[in-house]
Amino acid sequence: MSLMTTDAPTHPSREEIELAAVLHALSDPIRLLMVRGLSEAADGRSCGSFDVPVTKSTCTHHFKVLREAGVIEQRQEGTRRVNTLREEDLEARFPGLLGTILQAAGDQPALTARA
Amino acid sequence: MSLMTTDAPTHPSREEIELAAVLHALSDPIRLLMVRGLSEAADGRSCGSFDVPVTKSTCTHHFKVLREAGVIEQRQEGTRRVNTLREEDLEARFPGLLGTILQAAGDQPALTARA
Repeated sequence: MSLMTTDAPTHPSREEIELAAVLHALSDPIRLLMVRGLSEAADGRSCGSFDVPVTKSTCTHHFKVLREAGVIEQRQEGTRRVNTLREEDLEARFPGLLGTILQAAGDQPALTARA
Repeated sequence: MSLMTTDAPTHPSREEIELAAVLHALSDPIRLLMVRGLSEAADGRSCGSFDVPVTKSTCTHHFKVLREAGVIEQRQEGTRRVNTLREEDLEARFPGLLGTILQAAGDQPALTARA
């Protein structure tokens, strides 16, 4: 069996998502880039699919911060850990917040150039 | 003379305000409370006027983080340091961002109870 149930990442419920934690998770330029990438990939993306200037372990760390804050969901698909944005949960919890932040991030030249 | 010009706090220009820094500055529950308080005080408020559960020096630190991120302006009025939100600058730089975050903060019971 390769279900890896003991390894299943934990996620806060919708009600447990806190504003300060979400803002902290999004307060890093690399994580903002990742979230922008996820916002354009409904089926999710794995760590390796991002063109960001960090090592795989740093990438893994960033995704953990995003997951623990409730910004993304991580699920195991075979050997691949797939990340998706929790857009519905975030919208229900903090209406307009994610869209406004993604819009602001998209307007920043330094981030746009790399995305 | 009591102008204290050498002590004048520095502020980033509108163009220098960065999204990640703003989100970081707002990713602390106490700073969110302070910013909510400032959003209702067009004439500004001094550190001591906030009913927050922190010491004056911690309050001063939080205001420094907010100022350096470009979220607030600090000006000296005699012996008083008055803080005002840079709403116009933030709106020009990241349209809708501050309002959305303040709205989200206002919807959080834990923050509302203390505000």
